[in-house]
Amino acid sequence: MEKQYKPANTPQSNKISRRTWLGGAAAATMLYVQSSFGKTIQVAAPLLLPTPDDPTKKVGPGPSKLGKRSLYETPVRKPSDISSRTPLQDLYSTITPSDLHFERHHGGVPVIDPEKYELLIHGMINKPMKFTLHDLKRFPSVTRTCFIECAGNFRTGKENMTVQEVCGLTSQSEWTGVMLSTLFREVGVNPKATWFLAEGGDAAVLTRSIPVKKGWDDAMIVYAQNGEAIRPEQGYPARLLLPGWEGNTSVKWIRRIEISDQPYMTREETSKYTYPVKDRIRQFSFEMDARSIITYPSYPAKVEPGWIEIRGIAWTGRGKVREVQISTDAGKNWNIAKLQGPVLDKAHTYFRYLWQWHGQETEILSRVIDETGYTQPTLKQLIEARGEDMGGYHLNPVTAWVIKNDGSVLFKPEQLR
Amino acid sequence: MEKQYKPANTPQSNKISRRTWLGGAAAATMLYVQSSFGKTIQVAAPLLLPTPDDPTKKVGPGPSKLGKRSLYETPVRKPSDISSRTPLQDLYSTITPSDLHFERHHGGVPVIDPEKYELLIHGMINKPMKFTLHDLKRFPSVTRTCFIECAGNFRTGKENMTVQEVCGLTSQSEWTGVMLSTLFREVGVNPKATWFLAEGGDAAVLTRSIPVKKGWDDAMIVYAQNGEAIRPEQGYPARLLLPGWEGNTSVKWIRRIEISDQPYMTREETSKYTYPVKDRIRQFSFEMDARSIITYPSYPAKVEPGWIEIRGIAWTGRGKVREVQISTDAGKNWNIAKLQGPVLDKAHTYFRYLWQWHGQETEILSRVIDETGYTQPTLKQLIEARGEDMGGYHLNPVTAWVIKNDGSVLFKPEQLR
Repeated sequence: MEKQYKPANTPQSNKISRRTWLGGAAAATMLYVQSSFGKTIQVAAPLLLPTPDDPTKKVGPGPSKLGKRSLYETPVRKPSDISSRTPLQDLYSTITPSDLHFERHHGGVPVIDPEKYELLIHGMINKPMKFTLHDLKRFPSVTRTCFIECAGNFRTGKENMTVQEVCGLTSQSEWTGVMLSTLFREVGVNPKATWFLAEGGDAAVLTRSIPVKKGWDDAMIVYAQNGEAIRPEQGYPARLLLPGWEGNTSVKWIRRIEISDQPYMTREETSKYTYPVKDRIRQFSFEMDARSIITYPSYPAKVEPGWIEIRGIAWTGRGKVREVQISTDAGKNWNIAKLQGPVLDKAHTYFRYLWQWHGQETEILSRVIDETGYTQPTLKQLIEARGEDMGGYHLNPVTAWVIKNDGSVLFKPEQLR
Repeated sequence: MEKQYKPANTPQSNKISRRTWLGGAAAATMLYVQSSFGKTIQVAAPLLLPTPDDPTKKVGPGPSKLGKRSLYETPVRKPSDISSRTPLQDLYSTITPSDLHFERHHGGVPVIDPEKYELLIHGMINKPMKFTLHDLKRFPSVTRTCFIECAGNFRTGKENMTVQEVCGLTSQSEWTGVMLSTLFREVGVNPKATWFLAEGGDAAVLTRSIPVKKGWDDAMIVYAQNGEAIRPEQGYPARLLLPGWEGNTSVKWIRRIEISDQPYMTREETSKYTYPVKDRIRQFSFEMDARSIITYPSYPAKVEPGWIEIRGIAWTGRGKVREVQISTDAGKNWNIAKLQGPVLDKAHTYFRYLWQWHGQETEILSRVIDETGYTQPTLKQLIEARGEDMGGYHLNPVTAWVIKNDGSVLFKPEQLR
């Protein structure tokens, strides 16, 4: 047995050069025994990286202050003028690395000195107070893992779209901070109060009106993300977190909360974040609807006949994911996917479904049912409920990927009309 | 009420300069209303960062491909020649950011081309096989969150030691990969097999003998960490993961598994990772013992009289944390801390305990009891059980922090002798 073992690249030399690497790669591949699943996926073009033929013959760099990604892994967000999108197709589970969390802001990312930061709470309360970051950190703290999704998280239009392009405006972190209810008790919120204004300290001074009920329920002021201080793009040094609600209500760089008995009708809830539902306008549609998407296989992956583990994420702003169903025949039949536990409240939930593909063109789809019984709609159902002109918010249709005969995977934009 | 609100720094100008910042900082501080907890902790020296006096008057940078930490947050590992340590005192919950995961390796961090990577499984099996990374990713996958801790995770000796210095060789990630049992079934492991050799593809070609039973139980080959591809220092493109076992057995850059019916007695389990227990040598002590440590307040934090939330992490290689107890009077009385749920198997578990400090010098301690009933020992108990010369492995004594009258917090090294 042992003779069969041979390093992937029998080393002639441990010198690293472009020539060695390029020349060695093809030859080395010939040394491979047949891999268990047959053909290996080829990279489009050889990478020119300083990689030794045999890493066991080259002492690597020692420990460092901060780790770095492999040179072979380059996940990036897709920045536009106003947002950047998480590369969900590159991810394997539910935590979004902090530097890949989607961004959406209305006045850029402010630089805020944590020693100068303050959160003012005033309005219909007993005792108006300002809290420094140090103050906030002294309160009893809580950690929870949940998603944040932009209300406008949907794009379509062409076949060569990645998950990132279709719905990359959702990300998940482990957040830590103080319950807003703790601060409400500290300042003595008037029992007659029904709304509060949340104001951000960025150049947009973004404001939203939030029902006080949410403040007493599960709202938080968070100052930590995935174990460490919250990132600047996510509201450093502190943001409001409204689990399950449309992302912009989780006001970043939060600097002021004013308690009131009516909504404030700010720009971001009148000119934006409202949308037509037939002949009416829907406003204050806070909860994100249940949604799921297959992240593997998805464009631009290429698959081979045989067993494929279909993977993806499902989530709902209304509680927990109850079930994810998968169709591998364009929606005719549905099967139940496995959910990765623990299934958390208002959190991206990873699902998996093992499927044997026989090489024929087909469509694969996922749909989620949440614990309230809500089922992710098709686009047809969305149009029936809301009319042809639905605007750009709260669009959560079932998404299909086409698998071609040659194994290439394409987004299916026409599912939407 | 509203008149009381004023931005922390009333802007005279939005120009950013060192002079503005330094000059403005003290003046701006005078505008603060009394913060709810009284005195604000002062930074040791003013930071010279490009921070506008009023961030709302300055449009910030737009979305980017990769986010970055705030300039005010600079957590780093502590590299030595052979390892680097996680700054646990800077963290707020249980996920360790991937670039802060501790490092320990015996031949540096190898650069491995994922397209050339292979894992060979051979020995007492039906069908020796090589798996490419692509092969490994095609198998049914599993995600789990657990800690990895170095067997030698203990230092002492002086008062000005941080948590990072005392026990920064433990970190936690959300890992994704394939169960080793899945691969064992694929290759047909002989029922008579009892041990396997795990071999790394680094310059040290690190090897350890592992009971096959662990392979059938919860061992994994993982290729993803905190959502994305595993980091180079953690074994890119794939490592063995043995939840709850001493870190070096979770062989990084895993390239070979040989199945056998006896241990291999490799260098790393004879010259290292063994230690005296009275007149004998303990070998193959795989499970990490239950441990806890208070991460806040800890050196170099400074506290004020009043309410303090004592925070920290507890973990055990034998299952779940059942209880964490806190003493605020040098071990005379113990109280039960709150555990942050969900409490996961073989995972760092965050604990919190609210305590009112009246300004007198005292010692604060934590101890954990795991679900097997094992209680974290004092150093005295460890010495009684193992003798004076305990070596450097599996040392998990209760750790105390001294709080001085002036609020400064110091490590207590003499607790150990």
